[in-house]
Formats: sequence, C-alpha cells, structure tokens
Amino acid sequence: MSLTNASPLDAALAAKSASHVLATLPASARNDALTAMHDGLAQARDDILAANARDLDLARKAAADGSLSQSLVSRLDLGKKGKWEDMLQGILDVRGLDDPVGRVTLRTRLDDGLDLERVTCPIGVLLIIFEARPEVIANIAALAVKSGNAAILKGGKESTESFIAISRAIGAALDRTRVPNAAIQLVTTRDAIPELLAQDRHIDLVIPRGSNELVRYIKGNTRIPVLGHADGLCSIYLEQSADPKMAADVVVDAKTSYPAACNSLETLLVQESALDTVFPLVAAALASKGVELRCDTKSKAALSSLPSTAKVVDVTAEDYDTEFLDLVLAVKTVSDLDEAVAHINTHGSHHTDIILTTSGNLAEQFMSAVDSAGVYWNASTRFADGMRYGFGTEVGISTNKIHSRGPVGLEGLMIYKYKIRGAGHVTAAYGGAGGKQFKHESLPLE
Amino acid sequence: MSLTNASPLDAALAAKSASHVLATLPASARNDALTAMHDGLAQARDDILAANARDLDLARKAAADGSLSQSLVSRLDLGKKGKWEDMLQGILDVRGLDDPVGRVTLRTRLDDGLDLERVTCPIGVLLIIFEARPEVIANIAALAVKSGNAAILKGGKESTESFIAISRAIGAALDRTRVPNAAIQLVTTRDAIPELLAQDRHIDLVIPRGSNELVRYIKGNTRIPVLGHADGLCSIYLEQSADPKMAADVVVDAKTSYPAACNSLETLLVQESALDTVFPLVAAALASKGVELRCDTKSKAALSSLPSTAKVVDVTAEDYDTEFLDLVLAVKTVSDLDEAVAHINTHGSHHTDIILTTSGNLAEQFMSAVDSAGVYWNASTRFADGMRYGFGTEVGISTNKIHSRGPVGLEGLMIYKYKIRGAGHVTAAYGGAGGKQFKHESLPLE
Repeated sequence: MSLTNASPLDAALAAKSASHVLATLPASARNDALTAMHDGLAQARDDILAANARDLDLARKAAADGSLSQSLVSRLDLGKKGKWEDMLQGILDVRGLDDPVGRVTLRTRLDDGLDLERVTCPIGVLLIIFEARPEVIANIAALAVKSGNAAILKGGKESTESFIAISRAIGAALDRTRVPNAAIQLVTTRDAIPELLAQDRHIDLVIPRGSNELVRYIKGNTRIPVLGHADGLCSIYLEQSADPKMAADVVVDAKTSYPAACNSLETLLVQESALDTVFPLVAAALASKGVELRCDTKSKAALSSLPSTAKVVDVTAEDYDTEFLDLVLAVKTVSDLDEAVAHINTHGSHHTDIILTTSGNLAEQFMSAVDSAGVYWNASTRFADGMRYGFGTEVGISTNKIHSRGPVGLEGLMIYKYKIRGAGHVTAAYGGAGGKQFKHESLPLE
Repeated sequence: MSLTNASPLDAALAAKSASHVLATLPASARNDALTAMHDGLAQARDDILAANARDLDLARKAAADGSLSQSLVSRLDLGKKGKWEDMLQGILDVRGLDDPVGRVTLRTRLDDGLDLERVTCPIGVLLIIFEARPEVIANIAALAVKSGNAAILKGGKESTESFIAISRAIGAALDRTRVPNAAIQLVTTRDAIPELLAQDRHIDLVIPRGSNELVRYIKGNTRIPVLGHADGLCSIYLEQSADPKMAADVVVDAKTSYPAACNSLETLLVQESALDTVFPLVAAALASKGVELRCDTKSKAALSSLPSTAKVVDVTAEDYDTEFLDLVLAVKTVSDLDEAVAHINTHGSHHTDIILTTSGNLAEQFMSAVDSAGVYWNASTRFADGMRYGFGTEVGISTNKIHSRGPVGLEGLMIYKYKIRGAGHVTAAYGGAGGKQFKHESLPLE
C-alpha cells in the first residue's frame, strides 16, 4: 500500500497498471499477501494505536466544542475492547474465503478445436470512499487483494493519523509480496474526492462506505458505477391471515433490533380487514418497545385500546417517504395486496420488503411483484446482510438494478472475460451455402 | 406498444408501472405476446411496407442532394430481399429461447425453516436508442417482452413512418395479450433524447444501437448505466512461434471479412524476432486483399520484398489509437509478450484481442493479462458475436467492467432478487452468547 500524494489522475493510472499485474497473480500469492498484511499490522500495533490516540484526542476536543458527534468519536476508537483483534481476524477470514478469480462459468464447444470459456476475473480498479471507522481500511484492503482488484482508498479526515499508520504497515508488508505496492493506495490529499470521481476512464467501480448523505453525494457526482444504496426504506405488508404472535415478533425485530440500520423497518402496511384483528397486538408490542406510530385515520382508530403511554400520532404524506432510522414507524391502511405492492414499488427504496401471511399463494405473488433486492415471507427485514446470507463478508448492500443487487459478497467485485482457444479458425468459413455450421455444444464446467 | 406523445417523464413512469406487471407474467404469457406480435406484423405487411416506401422516398431525395449517405438509404429498406422474412422469423427465434426469468441461481438453508433463494428477474425499464434500421424495433420489442422488461424505444428520424406503422401493428397485437400496452413504447417526440437520458430514477438501462458517435454521446450524457461499447479497437499479437499460414488466415479474416465491424482488427503487434520469418507472409496476404499497412520503421524495413502494388506507409502515433473501420491496419514492432500486453491494455478498447502462437504457456499468459472482454488464442477476433457464441441472440457487445461484458445475450437483460421464506424468524435470536447459529447449508438448485 502506498501512501500517495500523487494527483488523483496519477493515482488512478498507477492503480490501473497495478491491477493488470494483480489480475495475473495466483490465489496463493494473493493469500500470502493477506498473511503479510495481517502480520505487519500485528507488529505495528503500538504505532497504530498511538496514531489512533492522536486522532481520538483531536476528535474528543471537537466533540467537546460540539463540532463533532459523540458517536463518531466512539467509532474512531481502535482501542475499544475487541476491535483491534476483530480487524486482524477479519483479514484472516477474508483469506479463508473461496478464491473468486478464475472460476469457469460457461464452456461451449463452438466447433471442433474451437472452445469458448467464460472465466471470472477482477473488475480492475475500485475507489473506496469511507468515513471515520479506521478498521474499514484493513477490511477493504483485504477484500481488494483477495479479489485481485486494485483499490484507491479515501478516508474521512477524522481518522487521518490512524489511516496513515495502518497504510504504512500494510505497505511495508506488501513490499515483501508479489502484490504491487500501488495496488492499494491511500489518498490523503485534501478535497481529492471530486477529482477521483472524475476518473471514469481509469476507475471501474466506486464503493462508498458511510452515511446516506455520502452515498447520495457520490451517486450524484460521478459517471463511474456506484455499488451501494443511498436509502433503506423497508416495508412490511401485514396481511389479514398473518399469525398475530409471529407478526408482532417479526415487526418488533425489524423495527427495534437496530433502528439505525438500512435494513430496518420504516413503513407498516396493514390490510384493512386486519385492523381490528392482528394489528392491535402488533401495535401494542411496538408501543411497549417505545416505538412512535404515525398512523392514518383508519389505523389510528383501531388503536383506541392501547395504553395512554403509547405514542400514536397522525401520519403526514412525507412520512411514507422517510427513512426514520429511529424508533418511529409510519403506518398505512391498504385494502389488499395489490395496493400494498403498488405503495412499496412507488415509495420504497427497493431494498428489502416483506409480507406477513399464512397464505403461500399471496406470499409468492408478493415476492414476484415487489421490485426490491430482498422480498421475504414471514422473516424479518434485518436478515438482509451478507454475513447472514452466508457470503462470509459484505462489501455493501446494493439497490442497483444491474450487476449486483442486495447484500454483496466477493462476487460483486468480479466480472468475467471470454476466452477462445482455437487452431487458426476464421469466421468467413461459417454460414452461407456450403459453409461450416457451429456446434454450440455445452461442455462440463469441470 | 403505444405510440406516445407523452413527455419523457410520463413515458418513463408508464413504462415502470407496466414493467411491474410484465415482471409477474409467466413465460407462456410472454411467449403468447411474441406470437401475437409476429402475426400482427405479418397481417400489417402491406401497410408497413407502404410506410417504409415513404421513408425511402424522402431518404433517396436526401441522398440525391447529398444530405444523407447512400448506405443509410440501403439500411432503411425493409423490402430488400429476405429482410421482412428475417424480421418476422427473428421474433419466433426469440420466442424459442429458454426463459431467462425465474431461474434459481443460489439456494441456501440459513436455518431450519428459513431458506434463501436467488432468482433471476427482469431489470425493469430499458431505453433503446437506435438509428435507421427499422427492423431493429421488432427485434428489440421481442427481446424486451421475452425478458420481461419494459422498453422505451427512440428511433432515428429517417425511419419515422416505418416505426409508426410497425408500432401500430405491435400495439394492436399486444392489446389482445396480457402484456400491458405501455410495456413497449415508441417515443416520436423530436429531441426527446436528452430528457429521456435524464430519467435515471425510472429507467434502469440504456442500450444504444448505432454508430460509435451515438454511443459516445449517450455514455457522456446520462447517469443511467449504458450497455454497449463506443469503440472496437482490436489487436493481434503475432508471436515468433506462430504458424505462418494460420497467422495469415486469421489476420486476413480479422481485418477483411467485415472491416466496418467493431470486432475487426485494427492493430497488429509483431514480435521483433518474427519480422523476417512469419510477418512477411502475413503482410503479403493482407496486401493481396488491398489492406494498407501503416508500419513503424522496423516492420516497414521487413517488407522490402513485397510487390510494389502493396500499400505500405509510415505509421503515426495516432494510428495506434484509431479504429479505422476500413482496409487499413496499424503495425507495431514489440520485443515480447509483456510489451504487447502493455500496448493492448493502454491503447486498445478492451473489446477483443488475440495472440497467434504455438506456445500454450504464452497463450495462457496473454489471455490472463489482457484486460479485454474477449481474449483468444489462434482464432479470429470476429468470433466476438452473440450468435457465434451460441447465445441465440445478441443485445449488443459490452466493454463495461460490470454486469455484462462481451457479446450480451438475454442474460444481460436480467438481474436477480433474493427471496427468503421463513416461519416468523427474527434476527435478534442469532449470535451472541447462547444465541442460535446460522446453518448456511447449500441446497440443490432443483
């Protein structure tokens, strides 16, 4: 990893060049580099924690005068119980994942002696823009090396000292491996982001790791494809046949287990015929967890029996387009599944939406019609997560409609190329009267 | 298909809405719609050819006063031998392809009663911008319906009458099917392209079908992902061990079988040690086909024995970055494979590049190191084509680094969603001390 003061263009050119070397390295060389990174960081522990302490000092002062939030200070702290160990273990975990490079996903015999093969390969150069958490740099560097991609990293200024110390350690470690140093570069130039986002000829994918505002800014300011999501406005449709106890459990988990997460519930759509049967129990469970319910007229009327401590207020139209990220829930009455689906497809963020019902038919209809990365039947929205899906890691959660959708594992950092091995075959020999015919025979993938 | 004078925004909203219906239709309903389209066009043959004749009249006048090229006039003509029949047969061919919707590509048991499934689904709304060839509209409408995507079509103004007649016939046909009429819309508003390209909230993918200039303009003027390629600058590396006869055959096919195609050869990289052995034979074969060779000093010197009719001129630096699309070839001497690869990765367009060699090791090294959609060993660049690859159709050829790369078949019009079927599972139950563990058991895809 080099710590670069190069211009964003030069950094991008160096990364592209390094990516071409990295793409040809065998899995063993990439895994050896991960081992070296792990060991190098372990050895540099004291230096890195000292640098982190300097970042923390400044941050605490900024927090004291109110210019920085206390939660950001807490995210900065690498010395917090278990964080350092988790960061190091994360590199070994990534090393242990199956190699995503060179997987054959299609083989076709075009003709005798002329075989087509589709093989996974790295995308090329990633630009990772992230905010304060210094451990992200090690995680992202590990994912890039494992997947054979070069990466340019730009971190939040609050963690500058930590980033520099970490990147020095990783850089020294990579110098002893076959991974080119420029494959992982930390850009520390101030205000480099707009110029980095302009390098669409040399950077292939941007991955923002941070707030919705950061993602929205990046999506609005680059031609490079962006992997991620700005919003997570997840909904649940409570159908009349839903089991009340199950519904209460799932809705409470989806809303309250981590309200600030993108996969948390923001809108509850209640079938009108469930207002007096299933809904009150669900609402009571939410109220007991301190959730404020913003209700339309009909759903509010159904809650007259809730204790007076329950927070039930009138909803506004805007609430149905709001990601609260807090113990607040918008509630809307709908007549049937079609109305629920139409609401979700219009107001949702195409992240994760679920139906609670005992009807398998309605569930399948819902999952087919809702245009979201995740569509669940009787399970919490909060399962939308790469680790929970069993991917072993999570690069991010995408609401894009191409390439990668939903929780993204290492596969999302891969593309493919087509290889043909021939024996001097020419196209003019095929087709036409008397020409050769293609065989197009599917071959085993081995 | 509706012929819309709606604003681009309204057209996009109607298409999105239609896409949500289309996405839920079974294969039989989409195939029935293709049959109806085919039959409707067959019945409207006379009207459509009459409309096409009016377009042709105008175009011939424009060609006569020099404001339109003769080749464009020829591309307009639907009455040309076999063209009408091919257009109709193309719809039936698309109907006969395997259904790309609803294919399960991953199944994982997360826990007892909690199964994750990744299922292919349509991307949503496609914007297809194309130039003069009127038969493209039927082809694209068929691909959209087959893949469950809605499409907004904007064609070149020279084919307006033909497009309107075709879209009327398709529209009337779709009215008798379950495919919503707004799923396929023809926009005839003048100058609608910039506004259509601004609908990145409602349009999911742009597919340009036309000249490099069109593609370049579109790529430069939208935030919607663009599937395609602006340039096709393909190279061949002639390694010293290549069989001279095979090399001549492949190079001639790559350069001369269809010089205007994107997969044609533009740059020949000759290993220095092959200059006096293999190269003269290859150059003579090219010269006999009338190919102009733009050579650097060393390669030119090697051609002193060519007949005086051979066109051999000095290359300029710019020639190595030029897609000639003509019987012109840039020739460069390189010392070895590394130099060839570096040249291709820097000056090529990442489309299709090949190596001619008898060494399997060098071939594998080349195919691993060249960062292109297609990398071949001893086969012509012109095999880069969806039909030749056996995809049954070709949506376009992509040089993108994400989603789809190389010749794109129906698969390129698909994305996936994750479905979870549970029994009231909540995330809070997992992890931590005493919490449940995920099983992450891979299930057969059925």
